[in-house]
Amino acid sequence: MQNRYVVIMAGGVGSRFWPSSTETRPKQFIDILGIGKSLLRMTYERCLQLVDSDRIIIVTNKIYKDIVIEELPELKVSNILCEPARNNTAPCIAYAALHINAIEKNATFAVLPSDHVILFEDEFVAAMNHAFDYAVTEDAILTLGIEPTRPDTGYGYIEMAEEISNGIKKVTSFKEKPSRDIATQYVEAGNYVWNAGIFIWSIDTLLRAFTLHAPFILNTLTQSIDKYNTKDEQAYIDEVYPLTQKISIDFAILEKANNVYTLPANIGWSDLGTWNSLHSYSHKDENNNVIQGSNIVLDDVSNCIIKIKDGKKLLLKDIKDYIIIDEEDALLIYPIDKEQEIKESLKKFT
Amino acid sequence: MQNRYVVIMAGGVGSRFWPSSTETRPKQFIDILGIGKSLLRMTYERCLQLVDSDRIIIVTNKIYKDIVIEELPELKVSNILCEPARNNTAPCIAYAALHINAIEKNATFAVLPSDHVILFEDEFVAAMNHAFDYAVTEDAILTLGIEPTRPDTGYGYIEMAEEISNGIKKVTSFKEKPSRDIATQYVEAGNYVWNAGIFIWSIDTLLRAFTLHAPFILNTLTQSIDKYNTKDEQAYIDEVYPLTQKISIDFAILEKANNVYTLPANIGWSDLGTWNSLHSYSHKDENNNVIQGSNIVLDDVSNCIIKIKDGKKLLLKDIKDYIIIDEEDALLIYPIDKEQEIKESLKKFT
Repeated sequence: MQNRYVVIMAGGVGSRFWPSSTETRPKQFIDILGIGKSLLRMTYERCLQLVDSDRIIIVTNKIYKDIVIEELPELKVSNILCEPARNNTAPCIAYAALHINAIEKNATFAVLPSDHVILFEDEFVAAMNHAFDYAVTEDAILTLGIEPTRPDTGYGYIEMAEEISNGIKKVTSFKEKPSRDIATQYVEAGNYVWNAGIFIWSIDTLLRAFTLHAPFILNTLTQSIDKYNTKDEQAYIDEVYPLTQKISIDFAILEKANNVYTLPANIGWSDLGTWNSLHSYSHKDENNNVIQGSNIVLDDVSNCIIKIKDGKKLLLKDIKDYIIIDEEDALLIYPIDKEQEIKESLKKFT
Repeated sequence: MQNRYVVIMAGGVGSRFWPSSTETRPKQFIDILGIGKSLLRMTYERCLQLVDSDRIIIVTNKIYKDIVIEELPELKVSNILCEPARNNTAPCIAYAALHINAIEKNATFAVLPSDHVILFEDEFVAAMNHAFDYAVTEDAILTLGIEPTRPDTGYGYIEMAEEISNGIKKVTSFKEKPSRDIATQYVEAGNYVWNAGIFIWSIDTLLRAFTLHAPFILNTLTQSIDKYNTKDEQAYIDEVYPLTQKISIDFAILEKANNVYTLPANIGWSDLGTWNSLHSYSHKDENNNVIQGSNIVLDDVSNCIIKIKDGKKLLLKDIKDYIIIDEEDALLIYPIDKEQEIKESLKKFT
């Protein structure tokens, strides 16, 4: 397996999926699909097809360490890296690289978000193996590109140029979330893929990229490089990590480097960014309702997302196109086509 | 106070107001108005303006004894009479009469439901005092008649004849819940009042009426009349009470007796039989919503009844004319104009 590692980023604090997800327990830690496993747990199990558990690193915020331990009890606690501050993905990935580098020279690693859905696991594994094989020999920053199935305006796009090796293509540019018209042009053009935030690279390539494009982050984190993979690592990180910039890996590295490549793949991916996307990825009843709960009576209810704790009764009549989510401390009843307003509405709570 | 007693009937197990009321804790024991007191507690406190606490008797089902003690901690436990079976109001009232008779000869008592609303307490107290005064000297079965404010089809009506004494009128007949047309005729005729289930009589008058019109009940309960108001009363009642008929006081006595009178009164009464009636008797916000809960954000919500436990967040958007009731073990979201279907819908729970 050529010294492979997988880094799963699980420090995010999404405000989506309220009230199911909260700052205390964000999306990656909840069973949002209602299948008995959190998204983090699903991501972890998926990655076991790529590397052994010992080579899976979870990077999370300190405040979520206990939840990660609870979700992944078989993972060595030393494989959980704790960010002492929310500094976006570039410092997070640099830290993971330095940690792995202290364990094993010449490693290659993939970085994945912990809160996405991937339906086609075989295709995912095949694509990742292909990407790992390429990254281990080439000085390449590789991304998995998701073949777009619709002109989605909620995703970033990657513009591709010519194929340089067995499906892998040179990246021309990264595009922010586009308008509907632009997105349609991208999809019709055929040389754009969605940016899923899945990256594969060797430690050497990545650290060289940081040296070239984000030296401040690397310098800040390497003042005492001998601390990594020792009992002093956490104390050291607590000291230096907050001093790095808050910047994404996309801005810090990907948009600047000239050795960025993408492997287009059709892996049934979604970032599950909206209740609507959850609806489309979940099993539906005969009236197109997505239902989680064991004691529910519906009468003329359709196109709804309904979630209530097992055992609690729910009697619902004459409702269409609503999100109805009942959690211990909060109840949401909201039109599904206005879900983008939920975040604003939440500010009204005193 | 001429040996007055008040008997509050609190044994009912209404299926209305689900999920707020349940068989475990029926309507009379819950704070359905959201004012910090159950309907029983409000009825009890109202009756303290008529008699001392020692002369208030609660008749309830055995299974609710603990709830009555919890709701009325200052009441002597010996003032709580426990029915071992649900035999409707005639046996219940006969039992209360025999219990009071064993405490004090020549008493007069009123019987009231525990789950109604009376807004005008002064008028209620004045009417009851007037009725008590009449009942203590006359061989009269008295009812409080509620002056109808609309052609309600949910109430029984009392047809009145000539006034026989200072506002008290002879009753000609009792009418079951009428159709809309009939109800309109009643209201226009002017000589009909609503039957609120509030009765006033002397023990002598009542026991004589039972002897004449429902002797089986009286005979069954008086096999060992010396047991009443002793430590053996409950065991005795447990034995004989289930042997009485299941019949209402209206059928057993009122519709047969020829000494029935009514005192029309305007006391702001409602039997609170529907969510709609609760809506009309409760404080409303500027959008005509009745709201119980402390952490609620509404956006374009009107004509709703909303109840959720204090502290639990509720975010609700674009809802009109709904009942939204969140309890620990059940959630109801139902169109308010279809509330009569709730009972049927509840049968669908497995």
